[in-house]
Amino acid sequence: MYARKLQEVLGGQFGEISVMMQYLFQGWNCRVEGKYKDLLFDIGTEEIAHVEMLATMIARLLDGTPADVQEQAVKQNPVVGAILGGMNSQHIIVSGLGAMPADAEGYPWNAKYIIASGNLLADFRANLNAESQGRLQVTRLYEMTDDRGVKDMLFFLIARDTYHQNMWIAAIKELEEQLGDIVVPTTFPRALEKQQVAYTLFNFSAGEESAAGRWAHGPSMDSRGMFNYVPNPPAYGGPTSLIPAPPNVFDTPPLPPAGPPPNQGPPPPAGQQPQSKKK
Amino acid sequence: MYARKLQEVLGGQFGEISVMMQYLFQGWNCRVEGKYKDLLFDIGTEEIAHVEMLATMIARLLDGTPADVQEQAVKQNPVVGAILGGMNSQHIIVSGLGAMPADAEGYPWNAKYIIASGNLLADFRANLNAESQGRLQVTRLYEMTDDRGVKDMLFFLIARDTYHQNMWIAAIKELEEQLGDIVVPTTFPRALEKQQVAYTLFNFSAGEESAAGRWAHGPSMDSRGMFNYVPNPPAYGGPTSLIPAPPNVFDTPPLPPAGPPPNQGPPPPAGQQPQSKKK
Amino acid sequence: MYARKLQEVLGGQFGEISVMMQYLFQGWNCRVEGKYKDLLFDIGTEEIAHVEMLATMIARLLDGTPADVQEQAVKQNPVVGAILGGMNSQHIIVSGLGAMPADAEGYPWNAKYIIASGNLLADFRANLNAESQGRLQVTRLYEMTDDRGVKDMLFFLIARDTYHQNMWIAAIKELEEQLGDIVVPTTFPRALEKQQVAYTLFNFSAGEESAAGRWAHGPSMDSRGMFNYVPNPPAYGGPTSLIPAPPNVFDTPPLPPAGPPPNQGPPPPAGQQPQSKKK
Amino acid sequence: MYARKLQEVLGGQFGEISVMMQYLFQGWNCRVEGKYKDLLFDIGTEEIAHVEMLATMIARLLDGTPADVQEQAVKQNPVVGAILGGMNSQHIIVSGLGAMPADAEGYPWNAKYIIASGNLLADFRANLNAESQGRLQVTRLYEMTDDRGVKDMLFFLIARDTYHQNMWIAAIKELEEQLGDIVVPTTFPRALEKQQVAYTLFNFSAGEESAAGRWAHGPSMDSRGMFNYVPNPPAYGGPTSLIPAPPNVFDTPPLPPAGPPPNQGPPPPAGQQPQSKKK
Amino acid sequence: MYARKLQEVLGGQFGEISVMMQYLFQGWNCRVEGKYKDLLFDIGTEEIAHVEMLATMIARLLDGTPADVQEQAVKQNPVVGAILGGMNSQHIIVSGLGAMPADAEGYPWNAKYIIASGNLLADFRANLNAESQGRLQVTRLYEMTDDRGVKDMLFFLIARDTYHQNMWIAAIKELEEQLGDIVVPTTFPRALEKQQVAYTLFNFSAGEESAAGRWAHGPSMDSRGMFNYVPNPPAYGGPTSLIPAPPNVFDTPPLPPAGPPPNQGPPPPAGQQPQSKKK
Amino acid sequence: MYARKLQEVLGGQFGEISVMMQYLFQGWNCRVEGKYKDLLFDIGTEEIAHVEMLATMIARLLDGTPADVQEQAVKQNPVVGAILGGMNSQHIIVSGLGAMPADAEGYPWNAKYIIASGNLLADFRANLNAESQGRLQVTRLYEMTDDRGVKDMLFFLIARDTYHQNMWIAAIKELEEQLGDIVVPTTFPRALEKQQVAYTLFNFSAGEESAAGRWAHGPSMDSRGMFNYVPNPPAYGGPTSLIPAPPNVFDTPPLPPAGPPPNQGPPPPAGQQPQSKKK
Repeated sequence: MYARKLQEVLGGQFGEISVMMQYLFQGWNCRVEGKYKDLLFDIGTEEIAHVEMLATMIARLLDGTPADVQEQAVKQNPVVGAILGGMNSQHIIVSGLGAMPADAEGYPWNAKYIIASGNLLADFRANLNAESQGRLQVTRLYEMTDDRGVKDMLFFLIARDTYHQNMWIAAIKELEEQLGDIVVPTTFPRALEKQQVAYTLFNFSAGEESAAGRWAHGPSMDSRGMFNYVPNPPAYGGPTSLIPAPPNVFDTPPLPPAGPPPNQGPPPPAGQQPQSKKK
Repeated sequence: MYARKLQEVLGGQFGEISVMMQYLFQGWNCRVEGKYKDLLFDIGTEEIAHVEMLATMIARLLDGTPADVQEQAVKQNPVVGAILGGMNSQHIIVSGLGAMPADAEGYPWNAKYIIASGNLLADFRANLNAESQGRLQVTRLYEMTDDRGVKDMLFFLIARDTYHQNMWIAAIKELEEQLGDIVVPTTFPRALEKQQVAYTLFNFSAGEESAAGRWAHGPSMDSRGMFNYVPNPPAYGGPTSLIPAPPNVFDTPPLPPAGPPPNQGPPPPAGQQPQSKKK
Repeated sequence: MYARKLQEVLGGQFGEISVMMQYLFQGWNCRVEGKYKDLLFDIGTEEIAHVEMLATMIARLLDGTPADVQEQAVKQNPVVGAILGGMNSQHIIVSGLGAMPADAEGYPWNAKYIIASGNLLADFRANLNAESQGRLQVTRLYEMTDDRGVKDMLFFLIARDTYHQNMWIAAIKELEEQLGDIVVPTTFPRALEKQQVAYTLFNFSAGEESAAGRWAHGPSMDSRGMFNYVPNPPAYGGPTSLIPAPPNVFDTPPLPPAGPPPNQGPPPPAGQQPQSKKK
Repeated sequence: MYARKLQEVLGGQFGEISVMMQYLFQGWNCRVEGKYKDLLFDIGTEEIAHVEMLATMIARLLDGTPADVQEQAVKQNPVVGAILGGMNSQHIIVSGLGAMPADAEGYPWNAKYIIASGNLLADFRANLNAESQGRLQVTRLYEMTDDRGVKDMLFFLIARDTYHQNMWIAAIKELEEQLGDIVVPTTFPRALEKQQVAYTLFNFSAGEESAAGRWAHGPSMDSRGMFNYVPNPPAYGGPTSLIPAPPNVFDTPPLPPAGPPPNQGPPPPAGQQPQSKKK
Repeated sequence: MYARKLQEVLGGQFGEISVMMQYLFQGWNCRVEGKYKDLLFDIGTEEIAHVEMLATMIARLLDGTPADVQEQAVKQNPVVGAILGGMNSQHIIVSGLGAMPADAEGYPWNAKYIIASGNLLADFRANLNAESQGRLQVTRLYEMTDDRGVKDMLFFLIARDTYHQNMWIAAIKELEEQLGDIVVPTTFPRALEKQQVAYTLFNFSAGEESAAGRWAHGPSMDSRGMFNYVPNPPAYGGPTSLIPAPPNVFDTPPLPPAGPPPNQGPPPPAGQQPQSKKK
Repeated sequence: MYARKLQEVLGGQFGEISVMMQYLFQGWNCRVEGKYKDLLFDIGTEEIAHVEMLATMIARLLDGTPADVQEQAVKQNPVVGAILGGMNSQHIIVSGLGAMPADAEGYPWNAKYIIASGNLLADFRANLNAESQGRLQVTRLYEMTDDRGVKDMLFFLIARDTYHQNMWIAAIKELEEQLGDIVVPTTFPRALEKQQVAYTLFNFSAGEESAAGRWAHGPSMDSRGMFNYVPNPPAYGGPTSLIPAPPNVFDTPPLPPAGPPPNQGPPPPAGQQPQSKKK
């Protein structure tokens, strides 16, 4: 049933609740005043409206679905029944024909979907990703419906996602120019990191097709190094080992060397057992 | 305690488990053979090693922490006690001085942290975001320690994140060129979306600083439109309303118009109550 | 399939596991001896039995469902197939035809559904809400079945929810009278809170229908103030701003004023980059 | 550290995000036009502002906390160190000194905290509970701080919660009068439920103190029955049993009666094993 | 649809992601060098391959499913429609015909499914359980399909689970012999625990069938005690009570003894309310 | 603070709520009448009492902790402050000095911790694991306290876990004998699985120490095969590939062969873009 599917772009990983909350939290936490902060509030507020649009649309798609329609429909008309077979029954039992803050599988929205790191370049990349995944999901939903009103709303949302992708690309470009670097965070001293592995692709899987990409040769995108490719990467470290845990953590104790198993005789009396540090 | 903090980049939202699983799932689901798929497997495999490095480091940082050190330490030395006050006690109780697949607050890793959408341009943007947030978090962790061995490992991870950011930027550029567009998904017919709102910034918050950005004027980044700015956006739709739910959903029924409340008299006998459709 | 739907009132947000655990935890944590504590244990114990009733009913509804019935049924009889299309396949794969501690969408029960705050008046309101949502969900489930045995069990549960709602309303009334107030917590000194906004409805949305309600005029329900309505609420605070983060947090640094972007020349050598506080 | 504790009323079970989302979803799903729907939007919008207030306050409390303050502080000043020992390190690592959509233990907000059932009387009881738990938590937080600015904000929030409790009590009373009943849902035919258990308290725990409450005698709160108390409730049902599962579900098969265990001889050849229905 | 069902053994509670992560974390955290640690890495690595096999199989099962097939199929062919009615629509909307790290109900994998306790005997029992539940689920999935290629892969997985069960049983036996005990942890001094209840079965439910089991009589399995059965267990403790909470926690305060309710008169003026400790 | 740590064995992954719910659900779903079912109810009921014991103990440990103790204590006494630094502040803010259904990190209990599969042999292995992990955690908690009353309760719980481990070992042995096999599920026809990999250890990690274990040679534990070891396992399958997704899923389309990037000219007019199937 389409109402269930539409829940994905309302309450899913990349739904409108996610972008609403992500932009608002980035705005509230923004420690750089000016156009970027204002932009976050402009778009964050717009997304509240998108949440409302989708919630209303879902409620309308559920209009006129009485609680007993499912069983009845199946008896009379397998076609209707088959569609209803895919309904989210919580749309009746829990929300009484209303939208839910959940995705297409009924999984509730949670705040680990979003990020507000305090670093705008990092976060604008999160935003560009969110708008890319979001527009992708809406176009897929468009292919699943023939309803004129639904499609009209989706055309609106797709267009806004087109703008939002363009917008974040522009903001990223502008911010990268102001910061003078493209590697987040731009303020960490480059000299400290291990330079010898900062521009290298290691071939860790079967096949060497990846050697043909731009990322494997030529100047790096940040203009601070040369890409290079290592077809047979050596092991950097040897095998690792850990020391035994203290006895009072009760991990497996150090084991005796192989030989006849120790429990051939009767069990040791309690007094000879390994001792805890406390009496 | 540092072991607890380091858990963030092992099992947190943007930790190494996240990138390992994200790249592997993108690779397994990839329906375009060639360099991109091979790249995903190269880097996905590398991230397994990073997970191992961090798990081992955390176990070493926990070395020699007996179960009763906390209370004792506090009694003898407030400094040690204060540090231990921030310990994750599950590092003793649950994992017996081992690393956990969880973040700095003990929240377990979950698969909603990752995305593999089948659309490589969308997913490479997710990857660039993950590497940006990841390097940011590692640099912050670097500032929190004076341990030489830990810093050495972090310098390695920071350098790899530098490469990975460069790499995804290169891959995104190459893919955008091959696809001939920058708006995900590039294959959805542009003519269908609502063109009139595809390049517009609406001013929905107090302040107009955002009008100064590149995203508010000039040709759009995808070269298919002109950015524009609407300082006082009108309401596109009127108030919405929903029809009443069917009686057998037991939502609030349509209410009587205002007036003296209806229950002035005795309660109606059961026989005169609203009827369900079933007897 | 009905077994799946019935899971909602077993393991959902307002299912029997929720009330069982909520009442028991309120009882165990209760620091006021006497009738309220005893009542919590009476009803908490009763709810264990309700959990058992529902678990048994669900297992019976699954009786005789072999693992291959779904595919076969669809081939032979679309009607049966359509019903099975809505089955929770975990009822076979995971629980082997047994009930699961999950809701109608397969989402597992979790302890954030419940509250035991130590304040009985607050918690009795939580209980009244739980019994209200619970009875509502059971009546909706009643409308979805024609099975005589299921309906018989639901009539029992609905009646108990009728009593439980009556009971919590009585307990709330009794407790409010003993405490001499209706605002939770009743023991916080009223003089401390901002009196000027303690009885005011601010009109923050389009439309002024809400001004007609009892909550907008007349004495307040706690008899300590007069309700009032503000149709055009002013902004109480001005715009807020935050100071920049310390450099070693690696947030976006303070940005240069607008002008030609700073990276017109070659990238700065590493030695001139922003410095971390540590070497 | 206080910023961590304050997160509870921002992103916890009964924090401001919860009431914001709960009221907005109730409003969007409301199928009864008029004062109740308008009220939900008034208060839902107000709560957006409360979320902003708390997010901003948390960011300010984190102001000037450099990433390395914790370890340094401990070394120099155990008092500061002890306080920092309770810091949420994600406030540096993840959010860069910004508020997070999480509670005092770092657990992320999720949408199962809220309810919008389509039945206003049920939901207003949920709202009264939320405002009761919310005010209780804010008063507890007040007791944990000496900061003048924080207390000033808390006095504001406490007063608003005073109004919101009064408001929902008024709305519940008005709605109960309009509906002519107090048992949710009011439209389910009372004659159908099992009348004989609709007003009875069963004594299921040790002690009979609960018999003294108003809920155990006298007319029921809904004026449709008489409360009664059963000190020694009989078992209503006998032991239950379930039929065996079909063989191809691979549950434990019916077991042989007790006697010598069946595997005294050599294991049966593969050809004589229990058969699956498929070859 | 079968792809959805197959997700259970990829990303479910006992799916291949669970065993992969469980064995790897046990190996990384293992503080006893030698054959057990090597075994964990052997099998943990094998499980990565199983994850890949299932992810690839699921993507193939989704091959050729266009986004609009569902609605069309239902109109033309109820049989196909009924099957699709059980599809996970996120397989189109979110993953674009790829496998997801989730179970058969779309619930995401999370790290609380696994354990690595540092005690190998405890963990090998967790492993034996995981392989037992895993093989059980795969055999149930086998009964749900007629696809030759799927069955071929399942026969492989079932055989590996047969080995893995045998293997963990062998490892448990070997480890128990080396440790000289079967009760985890074997190093806790037995003399400390309450000996009088260490080998007793209390009859806490109706019926005494459990008295017939081996666990109720004869020498205990660890050879350190004699099993015994208590048909009518007495209560060990009396009723418990808690002292009142301090006033500034705002729990329900101690209540006045029964009698006329205290609010017969007008509400007390603010100045006479219970006092908070702070002014 | 100890109350926080003790939460692990109340509401953690292997806490008392887990075993209570696991045994009760296994009992309710049990389709084999007799001693095993009765045993599950005996022990499941016992675990309810253990939950009560721990909840009460936690509340007592919190006795007399006023809401402002933390900040005050730190100022006056770093030792107390350091201990309180590890307190779960939700024990004041949320539960008002009561126990919570959560673990030592404040993570709420959820039902994915438990299993009731309908197959008793599989589930008894889950139970043995739970009691092993549980006793391990309690012994670790014992090492963290000097409180006489707490230790007394822990000695009781440790002894019961000793019995429960013995009991499940006895039940597993008895059930394996009745079923005549040790591989779960015992009723799946062995001839169907891939025999050639049913008793083989593949060496997939560096090092061959695992070849020395009992699992690598000799008769298998189920007496139906011979263990064997493969030091250099070959790849069973070749590289896998997936066919392209249908265009209307909007995955990355098949890419042109390498060469000059396609967007050298102006962007194509909208009319020549890739076509969706719908107009």
